[in-house]
Amino acid sequence: MKPPGTFLRFIQSLQSLPGIGKKSAERIAFHILTKPTIGEKILHSLEKVLLEIKFCSKCGNITAENLCHICTSPQRDQSIICVVEKPMDVFAIERSNSFKGLYHVLGGLLSPLDNTYPEDINIASLIKRVKTEGIREVIIATNPTTEGEATALYIEENLKDGSAKITRIARGIPFGTDLDFADDLTLTRALEDRQEFKE
Amino acid sequence: MKPPGTFLRFIQSLQSLPGIGKKSAERIAFHILTKPTIGEKILHSLEKVLLEIKFCSKCGNITAENLCHICTSPQRDQSIICVVEKPMDVFAIERSNSFKGLYHVLGGLLSPLDNTYPEDINIASLIKRVKTEGIREVIIATNPTTEGEATALYIEENLKDGSAKITRIARGIPFGTDLDFADDLTLTRALEDRQEFKE
Repeated sequence: MKPPGTFLRFIQSLQSLPGIGKKSAERIAFHILTKPTIGEKILHSLEKVLLEIKFCSKCGNITAENLCHICTSPQRDQSIICVVEKPMDVFAIERSNSFKGLYHVLGGLLSPLDNTYPEDINIASLIKRVKTEGIREVIIATNPTTEGEATALYIEENLKDGSAKITRIARGIPFGTDLDFADDLTLTRALEDRQEFKE
Repeated sequence: MKPPGTFLRFIQSLQSLPGIGKKSAERIAFHILTKPTIGEKILHSLEKVLLEIKFCSKCGNITAENLCHICTSPQRDQSIICVVEKPMDVFAIERSNSFKGLYHVLGGLLSPLDNTYPEDINIASLIKRVKTEGIREVIIATNPTTEGEATALYIEENLKDGSAKITRIARGIPFGTDLDFADDLTLTRALEDRQEFKE
């Protein structure tokens, strides 16, 4: 005998989530059966998320409105755009409290091997924003991976003839690590980008 | 700025699932936003599971009816009960196609350290079934862990004075492994429980 179809379909639908294989999907499904209050909490919050949350029509960040709170805030510097891969990166930078400009969420990185080309991510809208919104500086904050670097280079290539300054976040040794554990590429970059002491 | 409250609450509700931490919950939530069809599929199947799936009032297995398909099947041997920890174990044994009796799902294992005592799992209903349903044999198929063994012993203790034979699934070297990789306890048990060649 097999489990009821309804149950199997639920397990199957869970498997389309990132990082969830067959075994974890089964474990989650049985857990929800044993503790239905958890299932109901997820059901209601998922329902609300699907109904209410969308992408900001200007920067691509997630929002419950048409424009996100950052794009509409008068306290933000409207002349600097920080370009990131995904909404999670926006919230990571916001947590650091070190940036007061606007964002632009690409929604992916260039990766010809995975069939992600410039037209598949929000690059055209970025170029348009930089041209029409009087942007002074574009900080490219994609991850320091192959795809992140390729995307950064592509954007730089397409914006360098405009009036905005194009910068890239610093790559180097992160706080709290031991030099001994840093990889070669990070060490090379940290040495190349070395800076004089300020003041 | 923080993500919208609706979204944060969804991430939080996901974190009550087994094996899902903060990072995986965030990744899942953003994945659902980018691919809303996946979210809708999960929403509908979860809704149906919460509505339709319950536990069999006789054996404790999951079912869409009051009694499960195994308990109501005339093809099953009604005089043998296989005792397992959780519904997943039922489906594992069913996949092997090697058992044609009934099941009893305990819904947990004895574990005083986790505050799980005999009255917290379906042991009383098992004892009642064995006494009233004319059961010939009870096969205890709890996992060969400390809790599984303790639960098996407790059940054996409570049933041994009845008329039913109490057995325990064999523990030994699994198929396809190398002796070299088997742990000491498994090897000890495999030697102790050695059998003569049949036929």
